[in-house]
Amino acid sequence: MPPFDVPEGDPFGPHNLPYGVFSPAGSTDRRVGVRLGDHVLDAGAAAAALGSPYVSVLARPTLNPLLAAGRTAWSDIRRALTAWVTVPSHQDTVAPLLHPLSAVTLHLPFEVADYVDFYASENHARNVGQIFRPDAADSLTPNWKHLPIGYHGRSGTVVVSGTDVVRPSGQRKAPTDPVPLFGPSVRLDIEAEVGFVVGTPSSMGSPVTLSAFRDHVFGLCLLNDWSARDIQAWEYVPLGPFLGKSFATSVSAWITPLDALEDARIAPPARTHPLLPYLDDAEEEPGGYDLRISVAVNGHTISEPPFSTMYWTAAQQLAHMTVNGASLRTGDLYGSGTVSGPTERERGSLLELTWNGTAPLDLPAGKRTFLEDDDEVTLTAWAPGPNGTRVGLGEVRGRITPAS
Amino acid sequence: MPPFDVPEGDPFGPHNLPYGVFSPAGSTDRRVGVRLGDHVLDAGAAAAALGSPYVSVLARPTLNPLLAAGRTAWSDIRRALTAWVTVPSHQDTVAPLLHPLSAVTLHLPFEVADYVDFYASENHARNVGQIFRPDAADSLTPNWKHLPIGYHGRSGTVVVSGTDVVRPSGQRKAPTDPVPLFGPSVRLDIEAEVGFVVGTPSSMGSPVTLSAFRDHVFGLCLLNDWSARDIQAWEYVPLGPFLGKSFATSVSAWITPLDALEDARIAPPARTHPLLPYLDDAEEEPGGYDLRISVAVNGHTISEPPFSTMYWTAAQQLAHMTVNGASLRTGDLYGSGTVSGPTERERGSLLELTWNGTAPLDLPAGKRTFLEDDDEVTLTAWAPGPNGTRVGLGEVRGRITPAS
Repeated sequence: MPPFDVPEGDPFGPHNLPYGVFSPAGSTDRRVGVRLGDHVLDAGAAAAALGSPYVSVLARPTLNPLLAAGRTAWSDIRRALTAWVTVPSHQDTVAPLLHPLSAVTLHLPFEVADYVDFYASENHARNVGQIFRPDAADSLTPNWKHLPIGYHGRSGTVVVSGTDVVRPSGQRKAPTDPVPLFGPSVRLDIEAEVGFVVGTPSSMGSPVTLSAFRDHVFGLCLLNDWSARDIQAWEYVPLGPFLGKSFATSVSAWITPLDALEDARIAPPARTHPLLPYLDDAEEEPGGYDLRISVAVNGHTISEPPFSTMYWTAAQQLAHMTVNGASLRTGDLYGSGTVSGPTERERGSLLELTWNGTAPLDLPAGKRTFLEDDDEVTLTAWAPGPNGTRVGLGEVRGRITPAS
Repeated sequence: MPPFDVPEGDPFGPHNLPYGVFSPAGSTDRRVGVRLGDHVLDAGAAAAALGSPYVSVLARPTLNPLLAAGRTAWSDIRRALTAWVTVPSHQDTVAPLLHPLSAVTLHLPFEVADYVDFYASENHARNVGQIFRPDAADSLTPNWKHLPIGYHGRSGTVVVSGTDVVRPSGQRKAPTDPVPLFGPSVRLDIEAEVGFVVGTPSSMGSPVTLSAFRDHVFGLCLLNDWSARDIQAWEYVPLGPFLGKSFATSVSAWITPLDALEDARIAPPARTHPLLPYLDDAEEEPGGYDLRISVAVNGHTISEPPFSTMYWTAAQQLAHMTVNGASLRTGDLYGSGTVSGPTERERGSLLELTWNGTAPLDLPAGKRTFLEDDDEVTLTAWAPGPNGTRVGLGEVRGRITPAS
């Protein structure tokens, strides 16, 4: 039967099982869904039909109760789901609860508590340094190799894949402009990132150690941190990005549990500087993830950023974010920062790909420095799975609409 | 009868009526309360007893439903509350619903959505510029007079007045240190601010104009944006403050509705630079508020920052924050930035008051550059009210406990 019979090699086979929130065709009801191939399993209905003790966690309109349930529940539920979609005796019960992906509406899968964005790719940071501070002795700021630089973003404008992005307006001022100008951004960019979703909260005053990462973080998703470079350049000294980023951040509709990515775990790049004990992961389990990202504009692939090259791991970011005693809440989201590999075709932003607009990309739709209205950007990714399989991450798609 | 008979001149008389959330003595139940003198009125119970149509908004464990109800409801409810606590015929009904303030527990009054902090005092910005960039031609950055600089903070660590603040640990590196050090902050500071609370949300892509300020903002409170200057100094280039601020932000337990502050509205300082149309308030109603703040350490007043000197108004901050299309949510909180007046005794941070630790304050408890463990900081404020009265803002109190 087709829903169970996911084609060999499908990156959304039963080895993956990412979570989202969907409405069935013709309904506005929101339900937790689990993706299987080109179908979505109504997880709450399946839990009820099969007598799962986790029905109260799964029969909900958002992933937050699942996120809050903690690691033991996450493992139990994943084990149960795997059985539901693979054991033949469940097929008659489960098959009617599978909805074709093409027929459902996908929603932002969880309520975002705090949103933090990092800056953890050395290639990205060096490219940005060379572009904006060409005369500096070092393209990295002095703190870069000692701590994962991050800042808070706007959680209220995190949107699900497929949501249109209105071109933001704002102030900009080139060094040659006598006064600031106001208008639609003319340097609208993407940032290809990976977002990490916190499940288990922590208490104020209690830092989360490197080794507790997997007790607190439920899973990950692709994330596009849309950036208006002209607005950002004028506003960001001295307190950091604000309106250049806060208009929209897109995440995939599917949250991939860390448990699906066991085979993708790898050591991060060799550390070039000694780290303070709370960040020193030399004796820890591998903290990196081998995720192969693709960036496409209007269907044309422009870059393939390798997440394996990130200098700072998600576990280090979590340890840093809480070392001052800041607490975590269920639904906290943090972005890795733009993922850029060492070569030109591996850069995760147009800023880098076009070297600040000086080297336009020649795309089928025409030359591009930054995004034009109606451009559609799609991020996709996969990771190595068990037995040579691929684990697909949910795509992040967004189309630019004209300034309002 | 005492509860109704608030003493003449009490800054929490019936002309004020700020909102909070309390638990009665011996209960963990949370209820919306309205402060009257030294008592708290159980607003939901009063609404029920007096047949108010707003019982569903007031008989709740948080202010969020009231915040979301919108300006017309805010005015109606305030009018009703005023009658309940002043019309003699209501006294028998209302008196039993008044709890002595000393007997109740006060809670964080609303669920904070996004938290943004601004940098809107010219005196503060110039002091900081002179301290950190003594050789710069202008103590203000080039953008300062063109836009209200702001950044996002951590909403999950906003705490109510009275909550202890654990001294944060983190990385610091003085220019003379060969490598960063880790340990408890040795430059723990305060920032005396005013926080604005958003009630009515807005849609993505739809900026909120200057004149719509009072349709969206419900009220204000005092806010202490605790800051670890040593952590901040090492981390903040290039993406702004992060761990130097994210460990705690304290707000008062009482939210003063804007409707209680009509007599405190004043014009902001004269603008020295032309403003872009979306920020130009020359033809708008007065956007400033005459709030007289006091900062005390261990009961000793060290400063009296005047909010009337703020260059950027809360209406301008709201217009700026949304001009790129960023949406507002009920419960969004934004801080004014440190309030500093032109004279030494009007500075809102120890950084300024001690000129970065070079001029210690001589307090009864001993000399202070930055905060020591067990120091308790209290912010209080009042504003001119009708007929020569004073409108009190709820205090913000916090004691420093040793690093964990």
